[in-house]
Amino acid sequence: MQAEIISIGDELLIGQVVNTNASWMAQKLNEVGVEVRQITNISDTPGEILRALAEAETRCQVILMTGGLGPTRDDITKEVLCRFFDTRLVMDQQVLEGIQSFFDRKGLSMTDLNRDQALVPESCTVVPNPLGTAPGLAFFKEDKLFVAMPGVPYEMKHIMENFVLPELQGKNAGHFILHKTILTQGIGESFLADLIEPWVQSLPPQIKLAYLPSPGIVRLRLSMRGSHKEAMQETLDHHIEALKRRIPEYFWGFDDDKLEKVVGRMLLQKSAWLATAESCTGGFIAHRITSVPGSSAYFKGSVVAYDNSIKQQLLDVPEHVLAQYGAVSAETVEHMALGVAKQLQTDYAIAVSGIAGPQGGTPEKPVGTVWIAVAGPRGVISRRFLFGDERERNILRASTAALAMLHKILKES
Amino acid sequence: MQAEIISIGDELLIGQVVNTNASWMAQKLNEVGVEVRQITNISDTPGEILRALAEAETRCQVILMTGGLGPTRDDITKEVLCRFFDTRLVMDQQVLEGIQSFFDRKGLSMTDLNRDQALVPESCTVVPNPLGTAPGLAFFKEDKLFVAMPGVPYEMKHIMENFVLPELQGKNAGHFILHKTILTQGIGESFLADLIEPWVQSLPPQIKLAYLPSPGIVRLRLSMRGSHKEAMQETLDHHIEALKRRIPEYFWGFDDDKLEKVVGRMLLQKSAWLATAESCTGGFIAHRITSVPGSSAYFKGSVVAYDNSIKQQLLDVPEHVLAQYGAVSAETVEHMALGVAKQLQTDYAIAVSGIAGPQGGTPEKPVGTVWIAVAGPRGVISRRFLFGDERERNILRASTAALAMLHKILKES
Repeated sequence: MQAEIISIGDELLIGQVVNTNASWMAQKLNEVGVEVRQITNISDTPGEILRALAEAETRCQVILMTGGLGPTRDDITKEVLCRFFDTRLVMDQQVLEGIQSFFDRKGLSMTDLNRDQALVPESCTVVPNPLGTAPGLAFFKEDKLFVAMPGVPYEMKHIMENFVLPELQGKNAGHFILHKTILTQGIGESFLADLIEPWVQSLPPQIKLAYLPSPGIVRLRLSMRGSHKEAMQETLDHHIEALKRRIPEYFWGFDDDKLEKVVGRMLLQKSAWLATAESCTGGFIAHRITSVPGSSAYFKGSVVAYDNSIKQQLLDVPEHVLAQYGAVSAETVEHMALGVAKQLQTDYAIAVSGIAGPQGGTPEKPVGTVWIAVAGPRGVISRRFLFGDERERNILRASTAALAMLHKILKES
Repeated sequence: MQAEIISIGDELLIGQVVNTNASWMAQKLNEVGVEVRQITNISDTPGEILRALAEAETRCQVILMTGGLGPTRDDITKEVLCRFFDTRLVMDQQVLEGIQSFFDRKGLSMTDLNRDQALVPESCTVVPNPLGTAPGLAFFKEDKLFVAMPGVPYEMKHIMENFVLPELQGKNAGHFILHKTILTQGIGESFLADLIEPWVQSLPPQIKLAYLPSPGIVRLRLSMRGSHKEAMQETLDHHIEALKRRIPEYFWGFDDDKLEKVVGRMLLQKSAWLATAESCTGGFIAHRITSVPGSSAYFKGSVVAYDNSIKQQLLDVPEHVLAQYGAVSAETVEHMALGVAKQLQTDYAIAVSGIAGPQGGTPEKPVGTVWIAVAGPRGVISRRFLFGDERERNILRASTAALAMLHKILKES
């Protein structure tokens, strides 16, 4: 079964908003064996919406629309749906009560614009949206399913999880798409490709391989379609084990796992505590670690020592070390790591100091130079990295490199 | 002039990667007066690429493709382009030398896969890509321009900036699309809509208005097309001034401005220093502040006091305050703000403590409860917020609310 996602909104076409809704929907559709054939972003105008619906109908059995259902006057999707499905807008009493109770719960009063959100196309199945004011609208036309949903991510997700996915799971029993992604770090895409070439040759034709590089991490995705889920899973697992044996030093996880989660699990197993001391990453490593639920069981905190005075004062980096070697040096980051581990009484500590850019580079220490230290029960080690010119990318790569260093030390100990 | 962006790659259709390339390209195309009519994500298969090219050709004059040009065997775009434009792959000596020098600069040796990247369709114009190994490929067909680019963001950006945009700017002289976005916070979408209704009625028909809500922030975008750039700009400015006068307490910036940038500029003007003390936001506010280039001129650092012992030890929150009121309380965050301002010797400080979830809620303090304090020369204030159930969203909303509180205090002082 194939689906098309139609994302409606000028904000996507002028580049003001990134289409994260479509990615989430695609993931969830895959999980119920529905393949996304196309994602189409179009403008919030009747002509474009009608054209996209007509085109999608020729290709796919499932057509999911997001956006264009808000309370404000720029939203016209509902009227276009009436034209496409040859029906008219009617007031739905149940939806109206839902909107009323939504505002009551928030202690706010309802506006006329909100009241109009209870107008729905007569021939549609209304899908409740307890998280917002615009309901989902489902149309069954011959063997096809069309669903229009609000563009607000958590409202769309609620409608997907409570209506669209169960509906499709029923229709699509016996079809499976399996994906498994292998996460590597510390090796570039083409070097990895060379290294695993014999393994790639050994893959059966029904397994499809894709490379997904991102800053500091290369992901390898294996995909397989079929009707025997268990046999497919066994085949995939067999080839993945063979791959893991080929790249033990680069492999670190699967699928949407994150270094910060893997590291968190390892710390928890060891009942060990972590702290960070961050200069150029400015709190981003602490943020990545604390974005994991339950991280308070192994993460004590961080000192973001953006100013050198803080490095001395809160992290006990001696003044002469800063003066002699500079803030971006092995000596400074090692002192920072040991200092924060002592101050916050932790078993492990990460410290980072570098030049994120765009300013602040020198001939010996150009923009992108980053020193990272990791302290642990066996002492402290440090390493120098040279990333690129882009501030945001440097912060991201430094945080990934730091977590990877900690990961390696935790694995070895 | 209208463009279609075709993003090629299964990673988009299975939801593994979010299409940030398309948003960036759309923004830049708008700046040279080119309207993006559709963004199409399709699979990395010959049939889909050929279909998408044929469809796009009927709609648009400019067709920009990204993805499918990497060194690994999952990339097939080049061969499909040869079929579509009825040409063949030939070895390009200049591209080969470019790839060779790319590897020389990195001190790495070239693989056969990389050498194959110098194979290009014979009828295309090769666009150099000094940042990577896959060149851009441009085809001029009748009055239409097709360009295939690698999917790696900074390589694509380089080709856009050095070839595509200058080329289009020349072709498209005298056509303009202006966008201006007004940023508000502290008011929901439908309340804002009601408040500004008379102003909306006063807008001339050639100005299009759109609402773009996101966690804690509602953006209003005005768009205008025409051929007299200066007159258009004047009209837009006139209406924007009228809007600002109507919502002085909610307005805080324009376009892709960020609260952390606005606040940074204000601190710089006052020659004032800032620090943060973060519990549930785990360093995310420090990260937002330090993601702004030059933030070291006003940001000294942060204490991420995830564990209560750190709140006492580094921030001087008295034990009896924690015991009596709890870590999530007005008393605690006010002590945290004053403590970090004193420790790091800053004029202003932000402190946050809350329950990000999914665990840790109680009947009196459910998940989503967040206390925020801001300390400044006139003392310290604190406020309680109740966000939702989602950890990531709570961290984001708390950081926005904290920056908005600081912004208000800086504006008033």
